[in-house]
Amino acid sequence: MQLLKDRILKDGRVIGNDILKVDSFLNHQIDMKLMGAMGVELKKSFADRKITKILTVESSGIPIACVMGYLFEVPVVFAKKVEARNLDTEDYEGEVYSFTKGRSYIIRVSKKYLSSTDHVLIVDDFLANGKAVWGMKDIIDQSGAFLEGVGIVIEKGFQDGSKLLKETGIKVVSLAVIDSMENGKIVFRD
Amino acid sequence: MQLLKDRILKDGRVIGNDILKVDSFLNHQIDMKLMGAMGVELKKSFADRKITKILTVESSGIPIACVMGYLFEVPVVFAKKVEARNLDTEDYEGEVYSFTKGRSYIIRVSKKYLSSTDHVLIVDDFLANGKAVWGMKDIIDQSGAFLEGVGIVIEKGFQDGSKLLKETGIKVVSLAVIDSMENGKIVFRD
Repeated sequence: MQLLKDRILKDGRVIGNDILKVDSFLNHQIDMKLMGAMGVELKKSFADRKITKILTVESSGIPIACVMGYLFEVPVVFAKKVEARNLDTEDYEGEVYSFTKGRSYIIRVSKKYLSSTDHVLIVDDFLANGKAVWGMKDIIDQSGAFLEGVGIVIEKGFQDGSKLLKETGIKVVSLAVIDSMENGKIVFRD
Repeated sequence: MQLLKDRILKDGRVIGNDILKVDSFLNHQIDMKLMGAMGVELKKSFADRKITKILTVESSGIPIACVMGYLFEVPVVFAKKVEARNLDTEDYEGEVYSFTKGRSYIIRVSKKYLSSTDHVLIVDDFLANGKAVWGMKDIIDQSGAFLEGVGIVIEKGFQDGSKLLKETGIKVVSLAVIDSMENGKIVFRD
């Protein structure tokens, strides 16, 4: 999506060779006009799918997930990050390994809000190693729901998250795929 | 707002005399059609104000804040919850006491996204004792920005958050004010 790529080039800050800060418009301060346009674009890729629910994980996935929920006219569910598993049977729980933090955390969704009749679109702001998506997929699998696909704003194409998901037959669509950020220069995939 | 009151009566669950669970449509699963209608209603109350920024705190304030940002056509900033203060001068930090958790946490906003020229509308899903709003107000005061008001989805009118804010001259508008939940019966203020 050219509008997003232009914005990344204008306002994104590259740190080292693999960190992209886009907190001026995507995940701390949020440009809702851009977010709306991105939702419209992302919806086109899944317009042929029967989507009954949008799933994301708090916090930075929530804005784009809300736009998608509004456009598809279906509920948005956001998984909550918690410190540890509990023995509560009211929730589905998945595990997500965070490379940034060097440890795993648990994400949780109430069983009330996902069921075997649901067709779920996972939405998130970033896709890198894909650990958060696998945690959400685990929760979807526990519920018996069907994963229709994964919609992403910015994908780090030089990490293998997207590749591994696609290898299992999951449809992954990213609005911008970055192939390299070496020496501070952002190279997008065509 | 009648649509919201009806929904609270239909889907809200009262636990004890002071806990209202509305996670089926407001803060875990989200009904974006209702969220959109609530944003339109809430905007009317601040249409005469010059708003340049929407401020909320992660995570459950984000959906309604995003709707308000879209409608006002201004950026949304969400304060991040962190474990502890640091000595980093790149952020404004405020303290929020959580009665639920029995301890305080720190909220943080980058100095890049709030300045003395901003006119800020604080938005949140719930207002009870008002501690989160005071934490955000502290951050706004540090930035030199002007607090134009506070827009809330559900206010627990039997707690004193709204009263204390209004006593200092702050405009507070809530779409639904609950005066009592004793014995599981929800009584709204007219």
